[in-house]
Amino acid sequence: VSASLQLTGGTVIDGTGQRPREATIVVEDGRIVTVGSGDGTPRSSGDAQTLDVRGKFVIPGLMDANVHLILDTTAEVLLLHRDRYADLAIEAAQLALRGGVTTLFDTWGPPGVLAQVRDSINSGKVTGSRVYLAGNIIGLDGPLTDDFNPPGTVLSRKTIEVINAEWECGVGGNLQWQTAETVGDRVCQYIAETGVDFVKYAASGHGSPRCLLFSEAAQRAIVEEAHRAGLTAQAHTSTPESLRMEITAGADLLQHPDITGIVPLPADTFATIVERRLPCAAIMTTKAHHEWLRRTADEPWATVLRVQDANNDRLVAAGARMLLTTDAGVVAPTSYSHPQFKSVHGEVVDSHLELGSSHVNWLRSAIERGMDPMTALQSATRYIAEAYQVADEVGTLEAEKRADILVLDSDPLADPLNYARIRYVIKDGTIVDRDRLPERPVLTSASAFGA
Amino acid sequence: VSASLQLTGGTVIDGTGQRPREATIVVEDGRIVTVGSGDGTPRSSGDAQTLDVRGKFVIPGLMDANVHLILDTTAEVLLLHRDRYADLAIEAAQLALRGGVTTLFDTWGPPGVLAQVRDSINSGKVTGSRVYLAGNIIGLDGPLTDDFNPPGTVLSRKTIEVINAEWECGVGGNLQWQTAETVGDRVCQYIAETGVDFVKYAASGHGSPRCLLFSEAAQRAIVEEAHRAGLTAQAHTSTPESLRMEITAGADLLQHPDITGIVPLPADTFATIVERRLPCAAIMTTKAHHEWLRRTADEPWATVLRVQDANNDRLVAAGARMLLTTDAGVVAPTSYSHPQFKSVHGEVVDSHLELGSSHVNWLRSAIERGMDPMTALQSATRYIAEAYQVADEVGTLEAEKRADILVLDSDPLADPLNYARIRYVIKDGTIVDRDRLPERPVLTSASAFGA
Amino acid sequence: VSASLQLTGGTVIDGTGQRPREATIVVEDGRIVTVGSGDGTPRSSGDAQTLDVRGKFVIPGLMDANVHLILDTTAEVLLLHRDRYADLAIEAAQLALRGGVTTLFDTWGPPGVLAQVRDSINSGKVTGSRVYLAGNIIGLDGPLTDDFNPPGTVLSRKTIEVINAEWECGVGGNLQWQTAETVGDRVCQYIAETGVDFVKYAASGHGSPRCLLFSEAAQRAIVEEAHRAGLTAQAHTSTPESLRMEITAGADLLQHPDITGIVPLPADTFATIVERRLPCAAIMTTKAHHEWLRRTADEPWATVLRVQDANNDRLVAAGARMLLTTDAGVVAPTSYSHPQFKSVHGEVVDSHLELGSSHVNWLRSAIERGMDPMTALQSATRYIAEAYQVADEVGTLEAEKRADILVLDSDPLADPLNYARIRYVIKDGTIVDRDRLPERPVLTSASAFGA
Amino acid sequence: VSASLQLTGGTVIDGTGQRPREATIVVEDGRIVTVGSGDGTPRSSGDAQTLDVRGKFVIPGLMDANVHLILDTTAEVLLLHRDRYADLAIEAAQLALRGGVTTLFDTWGPPGVLAQVRDSINSGKVTGSRVYLAGNIIGLDGPLTDDFNPPGTVLSRKTIEVINAEWECGVGGNLQWQTAETVGDRVCQYIAETGVDFVKYAASGHGSPRCLLFSEAAQRAIVEEAHRAGLTAQAHTSTPESLRMEITAGADLLQHPDITGIVPLPADTFATIVERRLPCAAIMTTKAHHEWLRRTADEPWATVLRVQDANNDRLVAAGARMLLTTDAGVVAPTSYSHPQFKSVHGEVVDSHLELGSSHVNWLRSAIERGMDPMTALQSATRYIAEAYQVADEVGTLEAEKRADILVLDSDPLADPLNYARIRYVIKDGTIVDRDRLPERPVLTSASAFGA
Repeated sequence: VSASLQLTGGTVIDGTGQRPREATIVVEDGRIVTVGSGDGTPRSSGDAQTLDVRGKFVIPGLMDANVHLILDTTAEVLLLHRDRYADLAIEAAQLALRGGVTTLFDTWGPPGVLAQVRDSINSGKVTGSRVYLAGNIIGLDGPLTDDFNPPGTVLSRKTIEVINAEWECGVGGNLQWQTAETVGDRVCQYIAETGVDFVKYAASGHGSPRCLLFSEAAQRAIVEEAHRAGLTAQAHTSTPESLRMEITAGADLLQHPDITGIVPLPADTFATIVERRLPCAAIMTTKAHHEWLRRTADEPWATVLRVQDANNDRLVAAGARMLLTTDAGVVAPTSYSHPQFKSVHGEVVDSHLELGSSHVNWLRSAIERGMDPMTALQSATRYIAEAYQVADEVGTLEAEKRADILVLDSDPLADPLNYARIRYVIKDGTIVDRDRLPERPVLTSASAFGA
Repeated sequence: VSASLQLTGGTVIDGTGQRPREATIVVEDGRIVTVGSGDGTPRSSGDAQTLDVRGKFVIPGLMDANVHLILDTTAEVLLLHRDRYADLAIEAAQLALRGGVTTLFDTWGPPGVLAQVRDSINSGKVTGSRVYLAGNIIGLDGPLTDDFNPPGTVLSRKTIEVINAEWECGVGGNLQWQTAETVGDRVCQYIAETGVDFVKYAASGHGSPRCLLFSEAAQRAIVEEAHRAGLTAQAHTSTPESLRMEITAGADLLQHPDITGIVPLPADTFATIVERRLPCAAIMTTKAHHEWLRRTADEPWATVLRVQDANNDRLVAAGARMLLTTDAGVVAPTSYSHPQFKSVHGEVVDSHLELGSSHVNWLRSAIERGMDPMTALQSATRYIAEAYQVADEVGTLEAEKRADILVLDSDPLADPLNYARIRYVIKDGTIVDRDRLPERPVLTSASAFGA
Repeated sequence: VSASLQLTGGTVIDGTGQRPREATIVVEDGRIVTVGSGDGTPRSSGDAQTLDVRGKFVIPGLMDANVHLILDTTAEVLLLHRDRYADLAIEAAQLALRGGVTTLFDTWGPPGVLAQVRDSINSGKVTGSRVYLAGNIIGLDGPLTDDFNPPGTVLSRKTIEVINAEWECGVGGNLQWQTAETVGDRVCQYIAETGVDFVKYAASGHGSPRCLLFSEAAQRAIVEEAHRAGLTAQAHTSTPESLRMEITAGADLLQHPDITGIVPLPADTFATIVERRLPCAAIMTTKAHHEWLRRTADEPWATVLRVQDANNDRLVAAGARMLLTTDAGVVAPTSYSHPQFKSVHGEVVDSHLELGSSHVNWLRSAIERGMDPMTALQSATRYIAEAYQVADEVGTLEAEKRADILVLDSDPLADPLNYARIRYVIKDGTIVDRDRLPERPVLTSASAFGA
Repeated sequence: VSASLQLTGGTVIDGTGQRPREATIVVEDGRIVTVGSGDGTPRSSGDAQTLDVRGKFVIPGLMDANVHLILDTTAEVLLLHRDRYADLAIEAAQLALRGGVTTLFDTWGPPGVLAQVRDSINSGKVTGSRVYLAGNIIGLDGPLTDDFNPPGTVLSRKTIEVINAEWECGVGGNLQWQTAETVGDRVCQYIAETGVDFVKYAASGHGSPRCLLFSEAAQRAIVEEAHRAGLTAQAHTSTPESLRMEITAGADLLQHPDITGIVPLPADTFATIVERRLPCAAIMTTKAHHEWLRRTADEPWATVLRVQDANNDRLVAAGARMLLTTDAGVVAPTSYSHPQFKSVHGEVVDSHLELGSSHVNWLRSAIERGMDPMTALQSATRYIAEAYQVADEVGTLEAEKRADILVLDSDPLADPLNYARIRYVIKDGTIVDRDRLPERPVLTSASAFGA
């Protein structure tokens, strides 16, 4: 168990919405013991390490409501690293941690490997951001299918099936043939077998947005099974109607409700979202990024992007409950040449896909759209914790919470770029040695295939 | 108006379920006046024409719950006959009439042309089966799209759009972006502008079956708009869940509920269908045809076909309300070489797609599966009329009904092949000159392109 | 036979290279009788019509070494005008004539229809430019194949075959399986059966340029068969090696030798072309057009275009024998939306594809690249006649030649735009009523499908 | 250097065509010293090992004129074994050796890896069949292109390029843009840089057979460069004309001249092949295999197969110089489900693609077609050595040749199946420990991906 630690003299912005104040934070056994008056006196003179953070800004470790520790599922990444998926995920979790994101919600990936990585990190065997995972997006087929990367004929059928099965785990596209009851049964079994932390399903399609995957009854069955297992539920949506259905089905968190295709968020759904403070994991990007994206977009995608941008403006203006959400991950150098990742590297402006840095662009985008800086900070911490129902553990700097703490050189409320001016990242009460991360680079290695 | 007619001495099977009996049918002004005792005495000695049908069998004109007067939408048929769509539809309606099918329900086609053909026939200007039409399948894009024939690059974008618009009429695939309310509004407008006779929408996909097109709310909105306009509603379904949703939405007639993909009809939906006597427009085919189809089918289609066959066996055994349904039309000689029409011509066994003859295969199939011959006859007449809510006009040989009458040489209850042994086809009280049909052959012309 | 005509007082540029001079041209029976001293005295006082063309410029009717009377072979144009291919070709020939192009060499089209149109025009039954035709490009499949428009699945196999056969006439892609000897036999038979005026074969591929269709031996066999029949031969080439092979095989005219893919015209082939004055039917376009094209071209096409442009600069600078060549035709309004015809309409700069006007852009391009104006005029007249071995008939204003004469308002040697300032077009000694052309517009009709 | 060895008492069939005789073979330093009279007396009583092979049949080690040590280039095999291509090739060379094939000619593969494997085997560091290699097929693009496996979009562009470049080495499809002279220069450079043992180029296409890749001039340039470097040259051909061109160009060996598309081997080419005894590396298969293949083949492939079968019958009957040729290699278990390898595993009859065993099927096929058993044995040994100009080293059991010897339990001249009844495989004078091969199984490992 980690030794005691105290941070003295810093300006604490604790994530509860309380105004910044000078305070001393005392940590023991990985948890916060007190966030006391800022007199700087160490609580115990024992073996506690004391960090003098005068002039610094102390905030909760940041959170991201939607990342993918294994984002790059081009065939070559999957095959070249066939036995090292865990290493890929650990590299990603370490890049995030280095950037100050201490908690991640992985909303799509192979449940087996991700659960193993989660457990390794939680047990302290491996360094990395705290991970909560959904595994497969229920209703979608695996990565090498038309839902993601159409596999063509360059791979054998068998290989494709083996890989896809690692994502699908029995809750892939074939569920669309089943009744609501059977869908519920399969989801129940999936939760039990994989040990996922929350449930995500596809209310509408991924590749082709014009299609519902589940009836309202089937959506209810999925959400009920999640709740019965004590998990939150969320849906991938890409149309107004699938979003409305998701809300009706009782989803706890809306995954990119800002994406509503060629039609803006309808007024009544919009009102419901705002009034019920439904957590919106909106993939907000800077205006500059939006411009860049739209320049190369064909119709109907240019319209879809325009609508998304306007939806986000409206949501922020109305004070909807927004959550920092990037969809980020790590992409292999080879994949910079793949159309799917054109917004990762090269000429891209303010990418939202780079784990460890893109979260700052989300915060910039929030401020740009008029969000109050304190609300923005909470969108990146407490609101995510509440939405995912882990606020007992993380999200604010309060006694008994896990000691996930970010110490910044400059005031993040003054300028969102200050979220990147990191002095210390502390996770579970331990100061992270950021320079060592990632410990074993794979895709970011100088010798990576294609680097 | 047509002169009086009486049929004397025949064995009348009137479609009400009453046992066959000798009776005289007296017709005036296109309607049946009496179906009297079979003494053979003409009611009035005036100018009435008398048909002595002793030894013959007199039944209601047959009906088909699902045909397509313009079935063949390969690009060449549409383009070669660009200004003659009405001629195509008339040819089809005449082939049906020649085969004894006096009433057709066209469940997919360009509403403008079909409504015009319907009106020409109803007004007596043109000979042909009585036509009721749905126009577009709401939610699907036009014929030259991925929903039907993917257009590729051999045609110009503009041409494709012009043709598709004639089917879509504002209620194509773009509806999937809209809220239930907007969907309802568009359907209301569509009904008003096109003058369709009933409404058909796609509850699940056509090309790719694993996808819902409308939420339950949107389905309810569609059905309500249909009912508000005094029309019946039905859905195209291809999965168990979309079928269940259709029933919940209040559809009046189930279009091919026997097609449930790779999963059999679920028990509760099955029970609902049987108990509520929901009309099932099932595309039943003979066992021999099913064998033939399955021989060349890849998976998952071989399974889909097996499941469909078993569903139909179960439905017939349970006494579900089945309706004669062929999906038939007329196909150009060139199109015999198109994969879409492999079951029309050449080596096909017991085709279900040939308008004017395939309906007999449906009746054979019903008998094969154990349906009572009298029930089979009613499935081809009265039950369809009731399901489509036109039983005041057609479906039985009763006073005040339209005089649509089929006179057969042999007993149809003894052998379904006898439905093809036609002596007279009478429509609206007039004997059809079958040898003249089709009057102006287009696709069936000896000089048709590719013939 | 046409009445006598004389043109007096004009400045004659006779196409022989002789300097412009005032001269009177006397025409009888469709042929030039004398091009005399310019005293303006009519030769015979009989019934001769006299045109006073003082201040005007009198030049030979223009010629185009590569056009397609049926250029637009999108499926809808072929199918919508199934029985009117001749009308399409006549419309094109009339548009050309209206623009002053009195002789056309059609290098790809259905031989049957084109030969019929040629004969109708030659016999005087139909007005239009004089047509010489090659029919199919030997070795290529018909229009609805991967060689031109990939047909996809929207058409039936049978339809595709019927249409393609009208182009292929036994000398399509299947020739590639055959020995040189058999290739020769088939070409011999093709010439005899179709009555084409010259022979064109594909030395390398059309769609995909990286491929030779015929060995040197097979090419020799084709050229020999053409010569044996008294016809000239030419090849479609798209690579340096196929061009070299064509020359070796004895082709009389090089079709777009400026297109050599990603590699410039090799030095030795270049030297051969220049020294032997091999006629180059180069599709030269204005620099502005080249810029426009390249802006939207992906690699390797952008490189191919750059190389072509540089090849043309070099050829002109070295005094190669260039022929006016547009590849032009008439395109349906619907086809403006087809990728194949993006350079026909809308935002295109200086199109080379519009029959009746694009030839002026070729002349502008020649001047732009430094060609002498008199050479440019001969490239559009005499040199083409010589290359195609019809100089006994057309190409210059000399006694005994056909009286194909263009009277311009301004000096074409001063500015190539003056080729468009047409006062009279005279063909076979008859003044063309340009305002009536095209007599029966099809694709250019205001009511054309898609117009 | 290997110790001395003598084989006594066996029936020697030495590959020269001489009749079988009892003889003692004395080996020293890896080479045959004498093939003496069969008295069984050891030549030297020193440390020589003596094998008593009485009752056995002693023949030259077998040779295969066309194999691929890396045959399976599905993306997953290439990526999963990214750093182990050499291991794949060694596994293949060991499987061949285990089956008695002591010399292999690899006609397509990545030159770098294959040359390294060749050298490792030749130096004795690694056990395996003797390897001669061609590297890339000049003119074809790498494995992940339309020439072999179309790569689709599941891989990144960069990955595809990196892999393809390992095959192409500057002599891929881009050569088709170049003049004959440049082609020659590139081939010269390729030979120098890669150290290949012989040269193979594509005279016609691989995927799509209807296309020539090189002119006769370019073919001559390639063959001349090969000869200048002291190497033999051969071409991949798939049409009669490309075969004729190859012969004219001076190829030393014809690779599958039996494949002539839909047209039989023309009479004059056939005569040339027979009269000049041109070595024919024909992929002959058993009639049973041919039947099996044709059952599932669509047109035009069914015709192509029929023609190939008939060509082989004619060639054997005319006494053409045939060489044992399998095209074999090793295929991953996953790839059994890939269309490209349907004839490797499962229901295939008499596969020709399995390295280490399929060569026996070639010999069975030769006998089946009427080839003399002694000629068949020479087709598998001496004739290949002569065609590849390595007869000084291998191919017969004669003094000074390498001691590559196969000892069989039964007479191979009596039944070709006896080629599989192996007692000893001796290579370079050393008895191969067949049970240990392959030493490090990769694709044939019980734990291979997909096994």
